[in-house]
Amino acid sequence: MQIDVISCVNEARSDDFVGKTALVIDVLRATSNMVTGLSAGCRAIVPVETVQQAKQLHTPEDLLGGERSCNKIPGFHLGNSPFEYNREAVEGKRVVMTTTNGTRAIQKSQKAQHVLACSLLNARACAKAALEIGRDVIIVCAGTQDQFALEDGIGAGAVVKEIRGLSKNEPQVNDFGLAMESCYRQFGDSLQETLQQSATGKRLVKLGYANDIGYCARLNVYEIVPALREGALVPLVPAPTYR
Amino acid sequence: MQIDVISCVNEARSDDFVGKTALVIDVLRATSNMVTGLSAGCRAIVPVETVQQAKQLHTPEDLLGGERSCNKIPGFHLGNSPFEYNREAVEGKRVVMTTTNGTRAIQKSQKAQHVLACSLLNARACAKAALEIGRDVIIVCAGTQDQFALEDGIGAGAVVKEIRGLSKNEPQVNDFGLAMESCYRQFGDSLQETLQQSATGKRLVKLGYANDIGYCARLNVYEIVPALREGALVPLVPAPTYR
Repeated sequence: MQIDVISCVNEARSDDFVGKTALVIDVLRATSNMVTGLSAGCRAIVPVETVQQAKQLHTPEDLLGGERSCNKIPGFHLGNSPFEYNREAVEGKRVVMTTTNGTRAIQKSQKAQHVLACSLLNARACAKAALEIGRDVIIVCAGTQDQFALEDGIGAGAVVKEIRGLSKNEPQVNDFGLAMESCYRQFGDSLQETLQQSATGKRLVKLGYANDIGYCARLNVYEIVPALREGALVPLVPAPTYR
Repeated sequence: MQIDVISCVNEARSDDFVGKTALVIDVLRATSNMVTGLSAGCRAIVPVETVQQAKQLHTPEDLLGGERSCNKIPGFHLGNSPFEYNREAVEGKRVVMTTTNGTRAIQKSQKAQHVLACSLLNARACAKAALEIGRDVIIVCAGTQDQFALEDGIGAGAVVKEIRGLSKNEPQVNDFGLAMESCYRQFGDSLQETLQQSATGKRLVKLGYANDIGYCARLNVYEIVPALREGALVPLVPAPTYR
């Protein structure tokens, strides 16, 4: 298995995804919220690029969620804090979500055979899913403002390490993946502190979202793997025929 | 001091260099050769982008050096192995050099106030020079075929760590720089083995240049800092007025 880690969404080329399993990572906070929401019984999350698309697409039964500049969008039901994606708010609902980086990275990955939303919260579950699927893997760090984001790199490194640990055959990992894996090995024991040092972490602390960092810095606490199916993220249900 | 590390030459935007000190890193092998050549008494190294430019620019007294696809260019005096840049070959000479990534990264950095060629061989010397100059620093990992190269990232991490160690004030480091610093801390005790695992390292071993990796994986063995002056790399001579 070949694993390629891409440093930032604008480094990703759509054609590189064809035939592969794409893992999209936006640790702070989009993919952490997707994992949290689906774990709390949310029926589906529809990632869209623009606020206008979100407004056009949602029905009266849906919730609108997401952020611009880290804050809730006026008129939306949910912002971008994982604490908002609790059972009371999202159970049985469909959420139409737009965020600056995470949903864009999912859109960019659409040529992949499978698109999975990955975070620290479900890193091992994503590694298992990728191995069961058995295709080559492309891990996209969403990044922030077209730049690499440390928290996404560490998330990618966590997945690479999990795949390496679970795989019978040694995976081939690109240089950036090797670098991120070493980064994760270095920072794995101090995830919360490290995420607070990152550019996004500092910004979130300043904006009053410090608790979100602690929440998103937890490793392997959810088994759910959000998978893109006809434009919506739903829990991946492993089945022998899904290749 | 702000330190920004850029993952790859095609990620670098010319305008981001204005007013800064740029450190260009192509560990395997362009900047390692530049350091080696100037340390061996080479008078100047002129980095150019194309083979044709190199041929047009050189005079009968000059040497032509560089590579395409890791190999010596037909008709050139020197290839891209550091062992070729020895005193016997280069002392007192000017070398016109073209390589696939390293010289391109130097061209891309030209809007910087200072452009320095950096490698593991002279990482601490470059860190000292950057601190003496006192401007914000942009470290460009040259990369390979428009992709991040592990050896360049480790080189960048080494410089960030050296600057942090030597600096009176804590530098501000971008997320990618923090990641590379941690990478260097992880791999610093096994530089040669790590460089051999990188994509470029594997290619060089296959092509018969394994010894070059061992040579370039040595840390802080040269004090020389190649600096760009009117299109040519010459030893940086620190002087109180060079700001």
